[in-house]
Amino acid sequence: MRVNADRLNRRLEQLASIGRDPRGGMSRFAFTPAHAEACGLVASWMREAGLEPSLDRAGNMIGLGSGDGPALSAGSHLDTVPMGGRFDGALGVVGAVECAQALRDAGVSLRRPFAALAFADEEGNTFGIGCLTSRSLTGELSDERMRAIRDRDGQTLAERIAAWDCPLLRRTPPALATFLAAYLELHIEQGPRLDAEGLDAAAVTAIAGISRTTVVFTGRANHGGTTPMHLRRDALWGASALVLEVRRLALASDGNAVATVGRIEVEPGSTNVIPGLARLRVELRSGDEGRLTGLLGEVELAAQRLAREYGLEVQFEPWDHMAAVPLDGRIQAMVLDSARRQGLGAISMPSWAGHDAKNLAPHLPVGMIFVPSKDGISHAPDEFTDPGHLALGAQILLDVVLQLDQHFASNT
Amino acid sequence: MRVNADRLNRRLEQLASIGRDPRGGMSRFAFTPAHAEACGLVASWMREAGLEPSLDRAGNMIGLGSGDGPALSAGSHLDTVPMGGRFDGALGVVGAVECAQALRDAGVSLRRPFAALAFADEEGNTFGIGCLTSRSLTGELSDERMRAIRDRDGQTLAERIAAWDCPLLRRTPPALATFLAAYLELHIEQGPRLDAEGLDAAAVTAIAGISRTTVVFTGRANHGGTTPMHLRRDALWGASALVLEVRRLALASDGNAVATVGRIEVEPGSTNVIPGLARLRVELRSGDEGRLTGLLGEVELAAQRLAREYGLEVQFEPWDHMAAVPLDGRIQAMVLDSARRQGLGAISMPSWAGHDAKNLAPHLPVGMIFVPSKDGISHAPDEFTDPGHLALGAQILLDVVLQLDQHFASNT
Repeated sequence: MRVNADRLNRRLEQLASIGRDPRGGMSRFAFTPAHAEACGLVASWMREAGLEPSLDRAGNMIGLGSGDGPALSAGSHLDTVPMGGRFDGALGVVGAVECAQALRDAGVSLRRPFAALAFADEEGNTFGIGCLTSRSLTGELSDERMRAIRDRDGQTLAERIAAWDCPLLRRTPPALATFLAAYLELHIEQGPRLDAEGLDAAAVTAIAGISRTTVVFTGRANHGGTTPMHLRRDALWGASALVLEVRRLALASDGNAVATVGRIEVEPGSTNVIPGLARLRVELRSGDEGRLTGLLGEVELAAQRLAREYGLEVQFEPWDHMAAVPLDGRIQAMVLDSARRQGLGAISMPSWAGHDAKNLAPHLPVGMIFVPSKDGISHAPDEFTDPGHLALGAQILLDVVLQLDQHFASNT
Repeated sequence: MRVNADRLNRRLEQLASIGRDPRGGMSRFAFTPAHAEACGLVASWMREAGLEPSLDRAGNMIGLGSGDGPALSAGSHLDTVPMGGRFDGALGVVGAVECAQALRDAGVSLRRPFAALAFADEEGNTFGIGCLTSRSLTGELSDERMRAIRDRDGQTLAERIAAWDCPLLRRTPPALATFLAAYLELHIEQGPRLDAEGLDAAAVTAIAGISRTTVVFTGRANHGGTTPMHLRRDALWGASALVLEVRRLALASDGNAVATVGRIEVEPGSTNVIPGLARLRVELRSGDEGRLTGLLGEVELAAQRLAREYGLEVQFEPWDHMAAVPLDGRIQAMVLDSARRQGLGAISMPSWAGHDAKNLAPHLPVGMIFVPSKDGISHAPDEFTDPGHLALGAQILLDVVLQLDQHFASNT
């Protein structure tokens, strides 16, 4: 059974016409008229594919097919970053609807119901919290919290949704355990690896964990002329050495971790004054939680060693730690199996960015499929994946849906 | 012949009572009532020592003794930085007057006239130009320039001086060649070396040259999660490596150069974005002009090598280069000779900070004497030199005046 590549690409193009930003790309933010227009368009496709669309309390669109018991689901999000691309999020939603349509076109009924999901404010533009509304399915986004968090204009999420003019049936889905049996998300890689290595797809092993901290080296500010080199306690010396050490440690992980120092500041910040203080923002990511916490420890030890070497004090803010979330191993195997049978080049790799899949993965079997991003560009108007790869990704998604249906049938 | 240590210290204390800042230390800025009050006090001491005080067109106070031909001069400046110390500048002025007073007390007449000089706006607080008014003696500060440069309130230097209420005779001194035969400046070190090494004084070999530039590394800003380590072009990697390389090069000069990176900025400066640009401010100083230009070249080569190593571009702003100015070798020998005869620990060393001596040194024999700064602190209320070292410095100054008078007598 095959997805319809033309229909998929045509629908992605239609969706990309909603929320265009005159500066380039799309600025399609959650709970805006553009978001409502996108929901309306997707709802029409859902109905065509035999799915019944509705909105849950948090603004997630759910297109539910017929059948009993927990559904096999697939989806992603409809919102974009400012001046974002046409595939980030949209591909997973249109791909999910395409699976339902392909099944209907072929007259195939699954043993399980199928659900297409379209989340909102995944990018965190509106309420400043990434992957926001998918948390409503897990109970994490309580009514209380919806009445507490506010957008830039001071409106709560509850108020935004009540006021949002989106003419779809509002319906609360059942509790997650009885509602969904599995969740799949087709997404562009948003990194350069598949494109650089000439690969077609990836089975995602985990959503990388992220640990962030601010490191502060303190030395002594002093005259940049009269203080001899050997009497200096230059905070920037320790900070610079730590930047290079963080790089070395991440490189030594052999592709299993990345590390970034994206901010650095010195005080007092004057041409002729030795920096008495240097502040760095360190971010570590790994799909392997053990490696992430190990790396975090190595960075702390390195900073302490460098502080001693340069005669400085060093302090760490408590790490802001989001643990790595492993995805379902059986689904990864199904993704690689589908790719192999199609003669595609596919690998396993973690997702270095966050996705709605991360919220659901602790609660049910979750899998993600990546297709290449040209030059690794995303969150920009230049975001591009060629139509062939978009269709290949949707085909893998459909294959996995069929395999999962088989799997659950033989296990219940 | 000996200076009077009590008188010297008492007068320094009196001068320190003028221009006190309620926050601590002194804020005695050029062309203010406090500056006029300081001039009046110093003028009274000059008259007592047989010197005739006057103000030149730029606001320099000149206390001229009797005699014919170019004068042996000594001095420094009367202004301070905001919340400055009591010795920076003041010591050189009070020390010069003390020499004249000691000569008069002993009934000794020099073959040359003696002049005590008190410059203004050496710190550059008022017109933003360091060692400003001493340039009037060399012709560098022309009438035209005095009508061009403006303070923060938009007043020109010519206007400030015309409006300045300082009741001293205004008189234009003769051209430098016929006015001064030599200039000596007694000053606190403003660095930690003499204090740290338990030394009493230094003969200053040169006023260090200063070269400053801004170095910009350009890489590629990219997602801090999805971009593999080996595909990154992180501008901060090059910048950090250059900070450490600049340190290494300066340390390798074995005390003959210092280097500071006092400012660093990255763009876009976000926790999860790889820096696409890093901007550093590099300052190099050396008393040896050849070494300074050599170091400058080494820093450029290192930056280019590091840019290649990390896959970056690098650009240098044109160096803002102030050449090193060597001081008179015979005067250095006289300083060391005086110290040795007094049984003091003395060394030769460059001045890492600028002084009025720098403006005069290209035109006539110029020497400087340093006494220790406790913990190297200056430009702060905590600036301190013990009374014994203040007097020892003035004694060396007097000895050198006597030796110079001898020297010029035997050479004319």
